[in-house]
This record gives sequence, structure tokens and C-alpha cells, in this order.
Amino acid sequence: MSTYIAPLRDMRFVMTELAGLGELSSLPGFEEATPELAEAVLDEAAKLATEVLAPLNKPGDEQGARLTKDGVVAADGFAKAYRQFVEGGWSGLAGDPDFGGQGLPELLNAATVEMWNSSNMAFALCPLLTAGATEALRQHGSEELKGRYLPNLVSGEWTGTMNLTEPQAGSDLAAVRTKAVPEGDHYRLYGQKIFITWGDHDMTGNVIHLVLARTPDAPEGVRGISLFVVPKFLLNADGSPGQRNDVHCVSLEHKLGIHASPTCVMSFGDQGGAVGYLVGQENKGLAHMFTMMNEARQKVGIQGLAMAERAYQQAREYAKERVQGRLATSRSGDTVAIIHHPDVRRMLLTMKSQIEAMRAFAYVMAADMDRAHRDPDAGERARRQARVDLLIPVLKAWCTELGVEIASMGVQVHGGMGYIEETGACQFLRDSRIAPIYEGTTGIQAADLVSRKLASDRGEAMTELVADMRQTALELKRSTDTQVASVGTALEASVQALDDATAWMLHALATHPDAALASSVDYLMLAGYVCGGWQMGRAALAASRKSAANEDPDFHRTKLATARFYADKVLPKANALLEAIRSGASSGSSLPIEQF
Amino acid sequence: MSTYIAPLRDMRFVMTELAGLGELSSLPGFEEATPELAEAVLDEAAKLATEVLAPLNKPGDEQGARLTKDGVVAADGFAKAYRQFVEGGWSGLAGDPDFGGQGLPELLNAATVEMWNSSNMAFALCPLLTAGATEALRQHGSEELKGRYLPNLVSGEWTGTMNLTEPQAGSDLAAVRTKAVPEGDHYRLYGQKIFITWGDHDMTGNVIHLVLARTPDAPEGVRGISLFVVPKFLLNADGSPGQRNDVHCVSLEHKLGIHASPTCVMSFGDQGGAVGYLVGQENKGLAHMFTMMNEARQKVGIQGLAMAERAYQQAREYAKERVQGRLATSRSGDTVAIIHHPDVRRMLLTMKSQIEAMRAFAYVMAADMDRAHRDPDAGERARRQARVDLLIPVLKAWCTELGVEIASMGVQVHGGMGYIEETGACQFLRDSRIAPIYEGTTGIQAADLVSRKLASDRGEAMTELVADMRQTALELKRSTDTQVASVGTALEASVQALDDATAWMLHALATHPDAALASSVDYLMLAGYVCGGWQMGRAALAASRKSAANEDPDFHRTKLATARFYADKVLPKANALLEAIRSGASSGSSLPIEQF
Repeated sequence: MSTYIAPLRDMRFVMTELAGLGELSSLPGFEEATPELAEAVLDEAAKLATEVLAPLNKPGDEQGARLTKDGVVAADGFAKAYRQFVEGGWSGLAGDPDFGGQGLPELLNAATVEMWNSSNMAFALCPLLTAGATEALRQHGSEELKGRYLPNLVSGEWTGTMNLTEPQAGSDLAAVRTKAVPEGDHYRLYGQKIFITWGDHDMTGNVIHLVLARTPDAPEGVRGISLFVVPKFLLNADGSPGQRNDVHCVSLEHKLGIHASPTCVMSFGDQGGAVGYLVGQENKGLAHMFTMMNEARQKVGIQGLAMAERAYQQAREYAKERVQGRLATSRSGDTVAIIHHPDVRRMLLTMKSQIEAMRAFAYVMAADMDRAHRDPDAGERARRQARVDLLIPVLKAWCTELGVEIASMGVQVHGGMGYIEETGACQFLRDSRIAPIYEGTTGIQAADLVSRKLASDRGEAMTELVADMRQTALELKRSTDTQVASVGTALEASVQALDDATAWMLHALATHPDAALASSVDYLMLAGYVCGGWQMGRAALAASRKSAANEDPDFHRTKLATARFYADKVLPKANALLEAIRSGASSGSSLPIEQF
Repeated sequence: MSTYIAPLRDMRFVMTELAGLGELSSLPGFEEATPELAEAVLDEAAKLATEVLAPLNKPGDEQGARLTKDGVVAADGFAKAYRQFVEGGWSGLAGDPDFGGQGLPELLNAATVEMWNSSNMAFALCPLLTAGATEALRQHGSEELKGRYLPNLVSGEWTGTMNLTEPQAGSDLAAVRTKAVPEGDHYRLYGQKIFITWGDHDMTGNVIHLVLARTPDAPEGVRGISLFVVPKFLLNADGSPGQRNDVHCVSLEHKLGIHASPTCVMSFGDQGGAVGYLVGQENKGLAHMFTMMNEARQKVGIQGLAMAERAYQQAREYAKERVQGRLATSRSGDTVAIIHHPDVRRMLLTMKSQIEAMRAFAYVMAADMDRAHRDPDAGERARRQARVDLLIPVLKAWCTELGVEIASMGVQVHGGMGYIEETGACQFLRDSRIAPIYEGTTGIQAADLVSRKLASDRGEAMTELVADMRQTALELKRSTDTQVASVGTALEASVQALDDATAWMLHALATHPDAALASSVDYLMLAGYVCGGWQMGRAALAASRKSAANEDPDFHRTKLATARFYADKVLPKANALLEAIRSGASSGSSLPIEQF
């Protein structure tokens, strides 16, 4: 089993050439985020990922987290690794400086999130959830709550969770039943939550739960849900963890993957009621929670990318080492490493080119998030935010769907060895399989994209995006390099497909909402492939400039080659998806249930 | 977790309307294979699958096969179930009547193979391998060998294995090193084989290994490999198992799935040499083995179908039971079972329509195999055989790739519950993942399709197939039912794509064999989708006739709906694949290894 090596060169290329790292440091608040600092941060993160987190990945999978009478115990080595993670300041990298965070750009943070997840996805889930809980508290908590909880959440001294799901309330949170009864300055919570990631563990002195529940007089449905903070240990007057609160992990799920990430059934109020504090306004809990869901969805999208990268590295190393068979075109008849076989190259390039597309998409979005927060121009902030809002569901669903596909292809590259657990390729498939499900399934993301995002501005943000993409296609087509120009032709066709699909979708939303929803995942995937293609086109332009200037020509020629591969082999899916979308009528909406 | 129920109505429809079950009984040797007998056989098989094999599937996954000092012990209940399987006569259903088989058509056998694999893939592998070993012996063994081994293999009293792979010899069998030293009327074998499915177990009184090995003076490479039969227990003069032979399972692999199917490392000759008998001619072992590989590849293709069907049934039942969310179009605002949500319907129909296409493809091929063996007309036999030879790699690879995709979609339909092992959906994903790998990976099948099958007759068999498909498209387009006609239009376009891709491929084979191989999997998948589309088109014609005659109209309208769904949503992939194939030049064949 190969080791994870952070793909720093690829990351730097995207950050610098496509996401505008250099310009970010000119934004107010990012003065310290110079390219030099970024470089140092990436190097240190890569070290932690390779030396500390990656070696725990397979043992963590084999051992898993365990539930004992004293609560959940993390897999061996995880507590120590988490300590190093906190001491390295990684938890608060992009955190609010008012509460001890370093306030660095999301762009830089995104690269580290990729590394944590590539090296050890089960581990990385813990800070991922903490970041979501932190953000919800920061945006909606009272000054007092923030003062008491945020510093230790930002630093990672404590971890955070998201307690949404109940057995009858999964994708549909309107069905939440957990009760919150007011009692003086706090509430008492009673109920059961399931699928709570890192809901309990022994790595930190406290666990801070963000919990959706209903107050006694709350209206039915989504308008009667409030958000509470429920610490595992109540805080003493000095802010230190004191008395144990009445919230407990009562069992752990036995899952396909991410075994080292405890997925808890959490019970609130078995022994008199769990003390909780209202976050934000009563009955506005769902809206408050969505703040952290958006944050989490962006990071889960990066998980898809991260798993794909890890699976690719493992497959590539195997393909370089495994000697098997001869080349049809070889004269010598010598056996060769399988990376020389055309079909193995096809698989590796299918993986690599899509990983590059996902990374560029994800990092450029992270930079857009930074600009949406920090750009001095309000109009620019709004435009960036509109694009982020539009594309978060695309990033989340497209990257996680591709993550599974690519992890599965990684197994395939290994042949029979891929099916053996010791090889390690299976774990990436097993781990990655959760990502298109949690934080909103692919179907939920597609419904969000179509019924909310597209409908809310009648496609305006999408139209702007399409215009930007067309600009890139034009630039590509103007190139005298036929490779570059052909990427432009393919991109142009796929952008047209996205534009046509958007027009169809807007019409369907107004006339046949069922047909719109039936085609929504195809539409989301189409948008994902074209967003990836757009960034690959931008990468081709940048690489062609660099190549012409004779800077690292091999590397930049490869960037051109992967852009070309993506344009030739991946982008044709756009038209197939458009055709499928347009035939929305045959979605089987009228088929009687007995006939399934 | 739902129970497996054999989809008898769907099976019957394909067998009767598409594969010509009724006409098969007019072929010499199949006189007894009347539709009435077929009906009885299917009913009995369905009972065994549902009542005996399916209940063992999950416990078998959890417990797995175990290696003890006395050899491999099958999971609890497997030995008893295997006994019932043998006593029911299932092992010899399509077996040679000269050796106790029932000589029934492959078409009927294919339906039972689907049931065994849907209900318990790990179990079904045991008879699958036995059938392959039986066929190799039957075709290439001496009369004496056949007399001694075939009756007990045909009946299933003993099981058979295929010992091909060695650590350095996977896809490339030229690298086989196991030695076979002549000694009187037999040979002594020395060496180690890996990945031997059901290589040892306690369910039967003997295990008969078919083994590839080299005699001392054999030439290097594939021309120096011979095939041997090596029984676990040597036979006494009366044919009963006697002395233990020197072949042992020395370890079991720890795999992603099919845990109840022991995957053995087999050691030959640790204690003086394993006694083996030459099958067929010396140095012709690979050709002899390919006889059974073709047989096995057809059945592995059916495994892909079978896993998809099982995953579909589980997802469908969950979707009918799980109440979550409201319909966008509903006035009442009541919560509904998720099968009413458009995106869940899309997933279920994506699964169902492709399953129907795979089943029709697989069963029609089985009937072609029957005609290739039994048709009184030599020309017809040759034509059928040519088609079977052409399409076996397509069936194997396309159905197994789809099997994984559909099993993964089955997990997705369950949302978070899908990721929990107790739910059962994960097992189908884990189990199915081996099928695109063993018996020749998808890449190997694609190379076989392109470099052997297509090249050997310069595309003649493919051209005939395309002509038959065009005929169906024409018939569909002539229909006055617009649904039926639109299936014809989509089929016509996809057949054109296959035809164009074939022309490109034949040209590439002659000019740029590397580019041909780099596009070979895309070509195979294109052929698979179009083969499936052809059968769905034929199904639409049949269903439209039945529907017009008012026979079971709901059922036949559903067949039209799934054909339409396949044509609208699945067949557009054909053009995308054609585009990808044509861009073969950008396959990255010139990319230096360091740049991966």
C-alpha cells in the first residue's frame, strides 16, 4: 500500500494560476496571506498529512472507534494525532481572529482540507464538523455563547457536532421531534438523534453539540425548529468543563467505511434532560443550521476530490510497479509495468483529469467565498456570493459522485489485488461511498440547485456563469496551438449544452415541476462536468502561456494533455446528459407503484 | 432487509418473447424442454433461491468461510444448502446427458444462474466454477478421465475449480510457473496458485482442480502451458475418493465482498508432489482452459445482472416503505413514501430499465448458444456461434460494470441507511465489485473484443449484428404508437454510433493499435448499451403486440415505459462514447510516466 503524498505542485498551479492566490492578499484582512506564507502552510500541512494522519488510516479502518461504558474511544493513535493537529493550529486556520483563529483565506484552507481527507477521511471528519458548528455559532450565537464556546472550538480544544437526523427525519427535517423545554436561562432537551458523526470520543475535554429541537409551543413543520448548543460537559463559571450533561452516545453504527469515524446514536435527556442553550432565534433553527450545512457541503465536495486523489495515487503507484503482459506494439516482447498498457493509461488519465477538474472547481469556489466575504466592492461581494450559492450543490454532489467512481476505478486498476482488503484500494471505495449521501444526498443537492437556486433568480446567476465560460471558450479557440483550440471547441459545445439544459429546466420548473425534479440530477451532473471543463480550459490557457515562456515545460505540457483528455473523453457526456434531460417526460412519473 | 423474490414474470417475458423458448424445444435434443417444463423448473428454482439460498446470504457475509487445520469450512448452513442444490438436480440442469446431466437448454439454465446469484452470489460461485471445469473436461479430457470424473461433477457430488492465477501471472498467463513432472501415467505438480475460488471446502467429498502448469521441456510463454486435473482426493479403483492428494489451501484472502466464497491460496506439491492427469494435449492447456473461460465469462455476466436485480429489489422495497418528505406538486402536504419522489423514481427506473436490458441480452445470448450447439443447419450454427463469440466479452464486461453501478445506486436510494451494513444494500455493492475483475477484467474483455473478435473477421459478425439491429429499429419506427416509434428513432441513432465506432476501430486496429486499445473499453461499453437497446426495442415491439391484444396490459405498458426510459435516458450515452472513441489520439500514450 502506497503512502499519501500531497500533490503540492498541482495544488500550487490551481491556487496561483486559476484561483488568484496572489491577488487574495490584497483584500482587506488577508494582508498576511502572501504566497510565501501559503507555501509554508502547504508544506507543513503536507508533512502532517503524510507523516501523522496517513499512517493511521488503515489501522483506523481495521480497528474502528469503539463504544465503552465510559463513552466512545477513538482508534489507537487518533487522540495523539488530533493533539498534533490542534497544536499545529490547523483547526483555526481560516477561523475568526476575534476568537483566536488565523483568519487565512478559505482557498488555503481548502487545500489543507483536501490533504486531511486524502490522508485520513475518518479523522478529517472531526474538524470538518467542528468547523460547521463553529460557523453556525459564530453567525447566530449570542455574544455570551460565542465568548464561552468559540475560542475552544476555533482552536480545536473542543470539537463540534451537527445533531439533525432522527429515525423519521432524514432528508426531511420538518419531522424532527426532539423536545426542548425552557427552564430559566436554558432549556432541557429530550430525544434521540442518529447518524451523529464524531458524536462522542475521548480526544478532547469537551464535545459541543449543535442540536435541532422543538420548543413546547412551536408550530408544526420546518417553522417550529430551533437550534441549541448542548455541551457534553457543562461549563463552570471559569469556562472550564464541569458537570457531565445528560447527552450520551448509546450505540455506534456498523458502516461500510469510515470505520474510525464514530457514527453515534445520541440520546438526550434520559436522566432528567440535557441542558441546552438557544442559538439565534426560536423557530429559526433550520435557517441557522443551513449556514453550517453550506460550509459543510463545500467541504464534503472536497472530500470527494480528496478520496479520488488518494485512490489515484495508490493506483498509479501500483501501475508503475506491477509488471504484467506485453505491449501489442512492442518488438522486444518484454513484459512491462502495466502503466504502459493503453487501457491502464486510459483509466489513470480518466482519474487524473477529473481530479484536476474537481480541484480547480473546488479551489476557485473557495477563492470566490473569500471574495464574497472580503472584496471591498459590495456588488462584487454579491456577485461572488451568488455564484457560490449556485454552485455549492454542484460541487458537493458532482465531486462526491465522481469520488466514488474514481475510487472504484482505482480498485479496477489493481485487478484481483484491488479486491483484497490488505491492498488498501477497497477502503477508498468504502470510505468515499458515504460522501454522496451525507450532508444532503445527490438528489437533495439537485433539488436545491433546481428548485431553489435556479428558481430564485430565474437562472440569472447561471446565465452569468455561462457567459464567463463562453469567454474562456473563445480565448481557447483563438489559440494558434491546435491542442488548446480543440479544448475550446469542446468546451463551447458543452457550455451550449448547459445553456440549453438551463432553458429547458426553467421552462419545466414553471410548467412541469415533477419533470424538472426527475431530470435534476442529470442537470446537476451536466453543470458539474461543464464547470470542471471550464476550469480545465482555463488551466490549458495558463499552461500554454507558461509553456511558451519555457517555465517547467514538462509539467505544463501535461496540464495541456489532461485538459485535452478531459475535453475529448469526459466533456462528451454533456450532450448525452442534455438529451436525457430533454426527454424528461418519460420519467415514469405515471407508472403505478405495483409495476416497479 | 427485504427477501429475494425471483422476477419470474420478467424472466418469462424475455424467455418467451425475445429468446424464443417455444422454438428451442423443436431443436434436436431439446424435445423435453417444453414451455411447461420450463415453467416448472423456474418455479422450483425460485423456491430454492428464496427459501434456502437467500436467507444464508447475509449470515454468510458476516461469518465468511474459515480456514481450519482440516481445510476450509464453509459458512454455517452452506453445506446443507449445497446438498439440497445437488439433490434438486440443479448442478446438471444443462449438463451432458451422457454423464447424467439433464441436457436442458442454456436459456433455462441462465435463468436459474441468475436466481442463484441474486439470492446468494458467494454460494453460486461454487456451481459456476464447477460448470466451467466440467465443460473443459468434457471437451478435452480423455474418455477415461471423463468416465472417472464427469458423472460426479455433472451431478455436483464433487465440485470443480479453475487454477490459473499465480502471483506473477494474472491477466498474463504466459508467466505461469507451476511445474508438472511426468511420472508414469500421471504427473507430479509443484507450485502455488492464488485467487482460487472455492479452492477448498467441506461441502462435498472431493474437489476437482483444473490446473495450468508447465512440463519440464515446455517452451516459454503461452505455448508451453498444459492443463491438468488434480483431485483433492485421489480416486480408488472403484472411483470413490481415496488417498489425500498433495494439494492444500494454505490461506484465505480477506476480501471486500463475497466473504462466504473462500478465495484460496492453493499449494501443490509441498509433500512430494500433487498427482495430476493431463487434459487434452500437452502445451495446449491455455486453449483448453479458454473453453471453460468463455463459459464462465457468460455466467459472470449474468452475475452482474443478478446483483443488479437483487440491489433493485431491496431499493424498491425500501422506497415503498420509507416515508419522507412531501411532493412539490401535492396539495395536501402529506408526507409520502419516497418512491413517489421524482428523483427516486429516476433511480429506480435507471436500475430497472438497465436490468431488463441486461437480462434480455443475456438470455438471448444463452438461446444463441443453444442454437449454436443444436441447430440442424450448419450455417446457422456457425452464425450463432460467431455472434456468441463476438458478444461474450461485451456481456461479461458491460453487465458487470453496470452491476456495480446499479448496486451503488441501490445504496443511494436508501440514503444514510444504505451505508449501514445491517441494511444489506452495501453487501450487494461489495459483492458485485469483483465481477468486472475476475474471469478477465473489463480491459481484458475489451482487448478480446477488439484485437481478437473484431480483428479476426474484420468486423463481419459485428456488421451482421448491426444489420439485425437496424431491422428492429425500422420495425419500431413503423409503429403508429408514437412511444414505440420514438424508441426506434433512439435505437437507430445508437446503432449508427456503433457502426461508426466499428469503422473507426477497424481502421485504428490497422494503423494505430495503441489508440484502438485505448478506446477499447469505451467501444465495448458502447456495444453493450446498444445491444441492450436492441433488446429493449424488441421488447417494446412484443409488448406493443401484447398490449394491443389486451393481454396483461399493465405489465406490457410497463415494458413499453421501461423501453422508452432506456431509449431516452440511457441510449444517449452511445453518442458520447462514440465521440470519446474518435478522439483516441489524446489517449496520453506519449505522456512520460513521471507526469502521471
